[in-house]
Amino acid sequence: MASSNIGPELQRMIDLLAKLPGLGPRSAKRAALHLLNRRDPLMRPLAYAIAEAADKVQACATCGNLDSINPCAVCADPARDRSVICIVESVGDLWAMERAGAHRGTYHVLGGLLSPLDGVGPDDLKIGKLVARASEEGVTEVILALATTVDGQTTAHYVADQLLGKDVSITQLSQGVPVGGELDYLDEGTIAAAMRSRRPT
Amino acid sequence: MASSNIGPELQRMIDLLAKLPGLGPRSAKRAALHLLNRRDPLMRPLAYAIAEAADKVQACATCGNLDSINPCAVCADPARDRSVICIVESVGDLWAMERAGAHRGTYHVLGGLLSPLDGVGPDDLKIGKLVARASEEGVTEVILALATTVDGQTTAHYVADQLLGKDVSITQLSQGVPVGGELDYLDEGTIAAAMRSRRPT
Repeated sequence: MASSNIGPELQRMIDLLAKLPGLGPRSAKRAALHLLNRRDPLMRPLAYAIAEAADKVQACATCGNLDSINPCAVCADPARDRSVICIVESVGDLWAMERAGAHRGTYHVLGGLLSPLDGVGPDDLKIGKLVARASEEGVTEVILALATTVDGQTTAHYVADQLLGKDVSITQLSQGVPVGGELDYLDEGTIAAAMRSRRPT
Repeated sequence: MASSNIGPELQRMIDLLAKLPGLGPRSAKRAALHLLNRRDPLMRPLAYAIAEAADKVQACATCGNLDSINPCAVCADPARDRSVICIVESVGDLWAMERAGAHRGTYHVLGGLLSPLDGVGPDDLKIGKLVARASEEGVTEVILALATTVDGQTTAHYVADQLLGKDVSITQLSQGVPVGGELDYLDEGTIAAAMRSRRPT
């Protein structure tokens, strides 16, 4: 019964909106009505912006950040310190680090964490690429900014092992990061404090 | 600082997503990453569906429901009972009534509630159109399915007054609807019970 009298175009939009994180079937209907009441100021611009982003936003070939230019704005910024690379799990975590404003170097997005239970092994992450970057002239430090979960710390140890013998110091965020927490949920102050008191692994 | 390193296409999509009810600035970023990781199965279809709905979905000229056909699927359905018209505030409330499956007649969407404080008067609602419909041959009952808020009940009384002298019975949902509640938030069972015990106004 639920939606038998909602037209197919409307139903299709609602079904797709309901797949966004944070929206469910009912809030997707609310969002649909909200959009239909604001076609020119919001609905058409949103459709265009999503299509545009789908075509133009790409992963940076160097660090894995998402941007419409390649290399991304962080890698291309001459003011960033190329001697320090901060390793993060995801682009969301990179954005969380940028919000904290505590890192003036570059990044490397692994694209996930090692997780034997979920079948995620080293080959599924951008670790080889990281080792190559860490071997480049002038790189002096690699900062492991990974979650303090089991998978995050397993990944941190694995990455540190891969970098053994390279002429770089390997550090990690201090335990200011709450155990079991994930970067993207943290307040900026905690991230900044953890960044300041980072220590050798 | 917040978003200085997010490209303009990405930032624009995030800003627009954050205007949807239920999403804020952070959940919009999550939604953006979710979309970018599912470009072909979700992101491009969503952009297309929103653009398509913006162009095709329109208000039914008879009842005010939103559909891609005009008259809408409810008004066009030969199985619906044209002698009973259910008055609702919004399309969201019409959908809530349909979810409950308790009404086999047609609808009339007022497009709001009378609200002197917010400057909403009778001319801002589709009341004249309703009076014309209620005067048509064969209409025997008008059901007021409005919120039990002050504005909802003020509107119900005003509509009932406008229909005085017409040869229709005027009923309203029973007080199974919780006082202060709005239809769209109700469970189907409560709506169905209120529909069954509707009473003359």
